Amino acid sequence: MRFTSETSSDGVREQLFTLGEIPGVLWTPEGAAGARPLILMGHGGGQHKKAPDIVTRARRFVIELGFAVASVDVPGHGDRPTDERYDRIAAGNQARVEAGEDPAPLIAGFQALVARQTVPEWRAALDALQELEHIGIGPVGYWGVSLGCGLGVPFVAAESRVRAAVLGLGGALASAEAAARITVPVEFLLQWHDERVPRAQGLALFDALASAEKTLHANPGKHGGTPPFELDSTLRFFARHLG
Amino acid sequence: MRFTSETSSDGVREQLFTLGEIPGVLWTPEGAAGARPLILMGHGGGQHKKAPDIVTRARRFVIELGFAVASVDVPGHGDRPTDERYDRIAAGNQARVEAGEDPAPLIAGFQALVARQTVPEWRAALDALQELEHIGIGPVGYWGVSLGCGLGVPFVAAESRVRAAVLGLGGALASAEAAARITVPVEFLLQWHDERVPRAQGLALFDALASAEKTLHANPGKHGGTPPFELDSTLRFFARHLG
Repeated sequence: MRFTSETSSDGVREQLFTLGEIPGVLWTPEGAAGARPLILMGHGGGQHKKAPDIVTRARRFVIELGFAVASVDVPGHGDRPTDERYDRIAAGNQARVEAGEDPAPLIAGFQALVARQTVPEWRAALDALQELEHIGIGPVGYWGVSLGCGLGVPFVAAESRVRAAVLGLGGALASAEAAARITVPVEFLLQWHDERVPRAQGLALFDALASAEKTLHANPGKHGGTPPFELDSTLRFFARHLG
Repeated sequence: MRFTSETSSDGVREQLFTLGEIPGVLWTPEGAAGARPLILMGHGGGQHKKAPDIVTRARRFVIELGFAVASVDVPGHGDRPTDERYDRIAAGNQARVEAGEDPAPLIAGFQALVARQTVPEWRAALDALQELEHIGIGPVGYWGVSLGCGLGVPFVAAESRVRAAVLGLGGALASAEAAARITVPVEFLLQWHDERVPRAQGLALFDALASAEKTLHANPGKHGGTPPFELDSTLRFFARHLG
């Protein structure tokens, strides 16, 4: 893990890093020392580790909870090179959708493929982050919706250090099997008029989670329209389970 | 409105009253003076105005939010006499269920019948309560699940003083039509394994609400198993909309 830049603002220290070829960002409270909870955040499709909805949430987790927060670019996103293999598959899927095929199973298959790469990448990032003096071996949380849910479900299922997760805006096609191996508390966000994830698919993914404590928060509106008060709820959820 | 008793404990003043033949209870902060938000609570089937789940919530609304809270007995419940007409219908329904009929439409029909009596009763209670010096004309909220939802949906739909409502554990059969006339913010509680309200019926009632802001909170477990953290959420919901 190599740190490449560092800035600070309003009490939040931001460090950019690379782990092998993976670019990442770490936010911690300014002056933080010693172990603390760590939240790993998975960004959405076409976005990156410092997308506005990631940064907004990360800063609140740091400022209001005192946690560390990290995010890394997904293959083919952000500061990572385009990936010919993924591009070829994506172009093929695009052609099939234009020929009339249902996009949902194609997206699901693609996310499952990418997850086979991101799960070990994110576990390696956790390993490296927990060696830092100002993170250490504290409880770990995961936050990810949309693509961050499609990749997050297999990650949370595989990684026993994750003790609580906020997921959502994803469907059962992509990850019901992995969801059935998740037993930690989950807050699951669903948009009632999601134009990308059919409602029944989202409800089925929530249903598939094996967690004894799981709570579905459904709100009206489209895929990108999660209301701002859900972030307040997310803060309390992580405070309750990691704090 | 006639007050029949008064006690105080831990900062909460409790006044029992009758309004005509309707027995009710009012909780306010000790020493309260002047207008404040008022939450009307509708109790569950077979319960009453001072059932433990009503009292627990009411005390927190008073202590943590400084609101006034009132609850009245539903016909045939609590300190009200048994009602021959309702008893006759209930007995008839019971016989039909034993003969193999689906109970859901029977319960729905029964709740719709009782609501024709409780909606005007609760409106009269609001009128009288808002004349009290320590309540006055402030914003009004409604809380009711199960029977309190079946009776609450037509009440909230009819009563324009209600500005926000917590509803749930009810189905669309009983009240989808009235739900389509509700436009105020609603927090809707659903139990994922509700043995009394089929999941699809609960989701359909949430779907039927015309509110621009409505939020569905679904949790695993049976009809009576709403997790304690939902009360924290309810407090924040009412604080946001009535505070």
